[in-house]
Amino acid sequence: MKLTYKGKTKDVYELEDGNYLLQFKDDVTGTEGVFDPGANTVGLTLEGAGRAGLRLTKYFFETLKEKGIPTHYIDADIEQATMTVKPAEVFGKGLEVICRYRAVGSFLRRYGLYAEEGQPLDAFVEVTLKDDDREDPPISEDALDMLGILSKEEYKELKNLTQQIANVVKDELAKKGIDLYDIKFEFGRTGEDKQIVLIDEISGGNMRAYKDGEYIEPLELEKLFL
Amino acid sequence: MKLTYKGKTKDVYELEDGNYLLQFKDDVTGTEGVFDPGANTVGLTLEGAGRAGLRLTKYFFETLKEKGIPTHYIDADIEQATMTVKPAEVFGKGLEVICRYRAVGSFLRRYGLYAEEGQPLDAFVEVTLKDDDREDPPISEDALDMLGILSKEEYKELKNLTQQIANVVKDELAKKGIDLYDIKFEFGRTGEDKQIVLIDEISGGNMRAYKDGEYIEPLELEKLFL
Repeated sequence: MKLTYKGKTKDVYELEDGNYLLQFKDDVTGTEGVFDPGANTVGLTLEGAGRAGLRLTKYFFETLKEKGIPTHYIDADIEQATMTVKPAEVFGKGLEVICRYRAVGSFLRRYGLYAEEGQPLDAFVEVTLKDDDREDPPISEDALDMLGILSKEEYKELKNLTQQIANVVKDELAKKGIDLYDIKFEFGRTGEDKQIVLIDEISGGNMRAYKDGEYIEPLELEKLFL
Repeated sequence: MKLTYKGKTKDVYELEDGNYLLQFKDDVTGTEGVFDPGANTVGLTLEGAGRAGLRLTKYFFETLKEKGIPTHYIDADIEQATMTVKPAEVFGKGLEVICRYRAVGSFLRRYGLYAEEGQPLDAFVEVTLKDDDREDPPISEDALDMLGILSKEEYKELKNLTQQIANVVKDELAKKGIDLYDIKFEFGRTGEDKQIVLIDEISGGNMRAYKDGEYIEPLELEKLFL
């Protein structure tokens, strides 16, 4: 088992059978000790955050599997805080795909002239580049195509998958009276046919969830939901 | 004649016949005394900049008219540095539409992980909101539609017009050995049928033009070109 990548919230190991093992850590992104799913830095370490994230991820990836939505998920070991996944190649040097149901965060910072805080958005999808040095800039369909990161065909597929998956998560959370404001995904290409699949995780650290108008912290979300 | 708007580089007056008069000023955008077409502040005042901008604008708007490309232009008075135009309503609180042939400026600042300085771009179009407080954020086709600024149909038309107009300017400049790197336009809706037309100006202050690899200052461009 070979460490191939040390990430902000998880480490990645290559397995002998060609699959990968993700080790979930107790670090979450944020700035100055405050959690922020949009941040590029590890903001704080929360005891049990890794396992809590994995429990949610396991739940959602298995739900997606039942619905026939493709992901890289194989299985998970909650005790060890590890998840086994199929190999996947990211788009370019990595993209984040955001689906928004409410105007908060960077959407509001950019489009505050036209949107009010918390205003409903219709499963709005946007893509940002993973690029810490340039603060994860948003990028358009045309630019993704022109720079050879994602074809127009792939973009359509990605947008469609993003809305499908976000809607699954939104519906699941709604069953417990939780509102999903926005959620961030990563995708990759897998297999011979370069199928686009959801990768990484679906946990409190990737989304903004609210209950009765109050923001739910990532660790709280796992307790409240599972 | 009523002053209706005091802009950074021109003032706008309403005429009695319902048309508008644009008074070109000698102020150009930039920061700390250095010209920058992407800047939101008046960087410097250059004697004759208003007339030089108008001369180029008159030339290009008349060229577009000959080619049947719609603009708000009626006529121009170089001596007075004024241009008469049809009334037009802007999209939302104003958009800028950029067409890029080379990776420079904000494109490079955002996508430098995937593009090299000066790399050719294939008449790449992007839209930014005119919003000084939020540093003119880029906005996608989907967001423009969702926020009620521009319909999908209008976006397609806008992109098509942008590439057509930019190509006209590029070809005209190329006749004098000048390379167009990028250019910024404004559009509006005019008349009963809300036709999309080019508004504002086409001058050195809206574009980055180079000769033999050397950047040409806006005032220099007018002398070199006309």
